[in-house]
Amino acid sequence: MVRYLITFSYDGSGFNGYQRQPKLRTVQGELEKALKKLNDDKKVEVHASGRTDKGVHAINQKAHIDLDITINEDKLKMALNSLLPEDIYIKSAEIVSDTFHGRYNVKAKEYMYLINTGEYNPLERNYVYQYNKSLDIVEMERALKYLEGEHDFRSFVCTQDEKENCVRTITQTNLIRDLKDPNKITILFLGTGFLRYMIRNMIGTLIKIGEGKMKAEDIIPLIDKKDREAAAPTAAAEGLYLRNVFY
Amino acid sequence: MVRYLITFSYDGSGFNGYQRQPKLRTVQGELEKALKKLNDDKKVEVHASGRTDKGVHAINQKAHIDLDITINEDKLKMALNSLLPEDIYIKSAEIVSDTFHGRYNVKAKEYMYLINTGEYNPLERNYVYQYNKSLDIVEMERALKYLEGEHDFRSFVCTQDEKENCVRTITQTNLIRDLKDPNKITILFLGTGFLRYMIRNMIGTLIKIGEGKMKAEDIIPLIDKKDREAAAPTAAAEGLYLRNVFY
Repeated sequence: MVRYLITFSYDGSGFNGYQRQPKLRTVQGELEKALKKLNDDKKVEVHASGRTDKGVHAINQKAHIDLDITINEDKLKMALNSLLPEDIYIKSAEIVSDTFHGRYNVKAKEYMYLINTGEYNPLERNYVYQYNKSLDIVEMERALKYLEGEHDFRSFVCTQDEKENCVRTITQTNLIRDLKDPNKITILFLGTGFLRYMIRNMIGTLIKIGEGKMKAEDIIPLIDKKDREAAAPTAAAEGLYLRNVFY
Repeated sequence: MVRYLITFSYDGSGFNGYQRQPKLRTVQGELEKALKKLNDDKKVEVHASGRTDKGVHAINQKAHIDLDITINEDKLKMALNSLLPEDIYIKSAEIVSDTFHGRYNVKAKEYMYLINTGEYNPLERNYVYQYNKSLDIVEMERALKYLEGEHDFRSFVCTQDEKENCVRTITQTNLIRDLKDPNKITILFLGTGFLRYMIRNMIGTLIKIGEGKMKAEDIIPLIDKKDREAAAPTAAAEGLYLRNVFY
């Protein structure tokens, strides 16, 4: 048995999310189908850094896999790409120690969220969140700083489970306005881990702040409330990208 | 009857080309379906500047339409966008004279072709031509200049009809390397008119030149041959965009 770490990108538009589900087209499902063919028809489980939801993209998702066959790293990359559909691409494969784990060893993750406040572009409809009004970028940037640090992010999570630990650390945030097209806004989050819908819920609140319906400082009592009902609606999936995973 | 000029963009990936065809999803078919609903259920014919082939995109395609109803230009834009699918978008509508014609009045067209010589990106697979080797950009740029001017472009056209007039004028060409990502190459063509597959056939030849299999000067005897068999294969549709139409 040889353990490999694979780095891959995918277009989330054609998948029912990352995680394997019976009868639905998922990223994990397609990967495991291709890997089984390579692995002498024996099932291979893909242990990714975490799930991404339906419509969410990945630029550098990572996962570990165990193969019964021995195959050179570059050959594994090429063989997998020849078996995979066009909307998943293996960027690299490397042999790792048998104790390495694709999910448990994650130290940090980086997510990117794209917003277009300019004219709708049908060519980008699956790759950016279309927002048809202008946004107060300065206020949004200020609000981002209140999200940084260690917090209980329960207000941004849709969990029913009161015992679930929602404490996470956001180590860095960034808001970038495209120089060529100021209507394109990129928001970056680097953190130790993110809960389900957490980023899209934070983006929903940031948009409310950009609209002037909330002040940047309102983030503080909102976090303190620890109540999902208090925050804004979840922002659309198509703007979200898992950009990097760090071990 | 009021005549309107509409400007629209579309993502070619989901269409069997621009032109209406029975039982197939086409840009013209979707536009005419939406227009019929607006026009008291009376058929409306869309007279575009020209067709685009399957998989080819448009940033600014233009067409004239005649409506029996009277509707304000902005309202027409909004009403159409609410009826159209997500992959077509009306950018503007303006009332024009009854003698204006969407196709016959075209003075010039601009096309753009995108090539990626870097790593494959599944998120861009429908929007750029993926070429996995490096290209000699300087030689390609030199070759482009031989295509400029008035020529009989028969060598770049797949016509069987010997009598068809293949004389066109390319007024300007441009090759741009992306500053942020030098693996992204944009080639622009401005001309009085282009024949079917002409740009994709010219791109096929330019790639051969970029590969070092032909010299820039070889364009001259190639044009003189007036024989499609002499030129390189047609380049992929997904890299091609109709960028503008001038009247």
